[in-house]
Amino acid sequence: MDASFQKSDELTKQEKGKGDDMAYEKESPSKVREKIRRGEITGPTSGMCAGYAQANLVVLPKELAYDFLLFTQRNPKSCPVLEVSDAGSRYLKKIAPGADIATDIPKYRIYEKGILTGEYTSVEKFWREDLVSFCIGCSFSFESELIDAGIEIRHNTEHCNVPMYITNIECEPAGIFHGRMVVSMRPVPYDQIVKAVTVTDRMPRVHGAPIHIGDPAVIGIQDIDRPDFGDRVTIKDGEVPVFWCCGVTPQSVVMDVKPDFVITHSPGHMLITDVKNTDLK
Amino acid sequence: MDASFQKSDELTKQEKGKGDDMAYEKESPSKVREKIRRGEITGPTSGMCAGYAQANLVVLPKELAYDFLLFTQRNPKSCPVLEVSDAGSRYLKKIAPGADIATDIPKYRIYEKGILTGEYTSVEKFWREDLVSFCIGCSFSFESELIDAGIEIRHNTEHCNVPMYITNIECEPAGIFHGRMVVSMRPVPYDQIVKAVTVTDRMPRVHGAPIHIGDPAVIGIQDIDRPDFGDRVTIKDGEVPVFWCCGVTPQSVVMDVKPDFVITHSPGHMLITDVKNTDLK
Repeated sequence: MDASFQKSDELTKQEKGKGDDMAYEKESPSKVREKIRRGEITGPTSGMCAGYAQANLVVLPKELAYDFLLFTQRNPKSCPVLEVSDAGSRYLKKIAPGADIATDIPKYRIYEKGILTGEYTSVEKFWREDLVSFCIGCSFSFESELIDAGIEIRHNTEHCNVPMYITNIECEPAGIFHGRMVVSMRPVPYDQIVKAVTVTDRMPRVHGAPIHIGDPAVIGIQDIDRPDFGDRVTIKDGEVPVFWCCGVTPQSVVMDVKPDFVITHSPGHMLITDVKNTDLK
Repeated sequence: MDASFQKSDELTKQEKGKGDDMAYEKESPSKVREKIRRGEITGPTSGMCAGYAQANLVVLPKELAYDFLLFTQRNPKSCPVLEVSDAGSRYLKKIAPGADIATDIPKYRIYEKGILTGEYTSVEKFWREDLVSFCIGCSFSFESELIDAGIEIRHNTEHCNVPMYITNIECEPAGIFHGRMVVSMRPVPYDQIVKAVTVTDRMPRVHGAPIHIGDPAVIGIQDIDRPDFGDRVTIKDGEVPVFWCCGVTPQSVVMDVKPDFVITHSPGHMLITDVKNTDLK
């Protein structure tokens, strides 16, 4: 769901349960980004600006940008790129005109040589002329389509983060980037599986159709009750675990490579774009 | 259709009318590539290996590769990338394993500073360690789907090249690359227009749905009977010109930038891949 690559218990209980998000459900993306920029919103963005796509952020030095862009091209289901900024630019022309990449996300993380060195509500003071920003589609978008299609999203019902797993599926490597695919899991009743596939297949820019349905062991998941990231959810009788490529994959891969300097959003604290989910179909 | 960015009268009458292509209609891609490698096939690939996708080729020095890859990311309808090679590698892992990029296309072109300096049946002797190969989807693939859907492809019926036009639509620039979109045109009867849209919309990796239907002037085409590339085709009463993004766009843009050294395929002489058209849906 979001771009967590840390155990989700890093998300504090207060953040997870935060109820006043709903206040921004009907606000426009530009207004909410303005509040974020002014420091009035610093929590997770889940539920804000209903209908608008939210995006994962990976900011890398230009010298790594070609290999990373090639990695996204070779792994489009895990890394559906919505927009890449010009080098040094803090602006996005297509998905969020007027947004400032360095200030309009409620919480950022900075990693140096693969180590999380800090969380910030603005990364203005860290900005460099050689930075390139990658905005990557997020499964928030297809979840709202699944709900519209009558499919329950269990981690919503159980008020927790989506369970995510590191699989045994190797991504296509590109230059210095390589690693295993991370997937998210949603339990689906047998009679809704086909619908879950067809609904998400229509949204290739936010991970598209599932990559696996059923036995977790087939893709190297040993214990479905112990996700690598996010939270365990209930799988009821008559339900099957369905797995989708996850936006955590690119960040997880970037972290493995341990570059000198990377900025990402903080898990759950996404970039709210001006693009409607329906336009990502 | 193909990656011509020269007037198609450069394709000689013999090449255009060449009938013995049909001999290879039922051959496998790997067998035909072998014959091409041995110099037994040097003509256009149209009609060969029915059902398999053919690809446009653009080979650039690594220093231009990031800007070009970003250009393709920002202009996916014009530049649907099927595969990008590793720098220096002549091999493709996904779309044509076993193919040699430098020998398995019947005819190549070399451009230096935007000037065509030669045509070759192999570019082995020009190969450099810093070259990156981009294979870009070709509308051959969606034409076979249109034919299956009962839509006549006029330039096939009239045995000529598809008409292509430079529009007034600016591509999204990326780094050094910028320029106007090139489109191909196929006349479609009123009662088949919806079908032409839905059939091609299902194939985003080979240009997808049309970008314009009807009045050519709306997209800056002054005279439909004078294409910028390819040949004029008949538009009958009750037919409407339908325009699709064209694989000539990226080559045209690359030529405008006049890089020191570029290799492309020669118009009509495509890379035959091992990927079935149906798998590009």
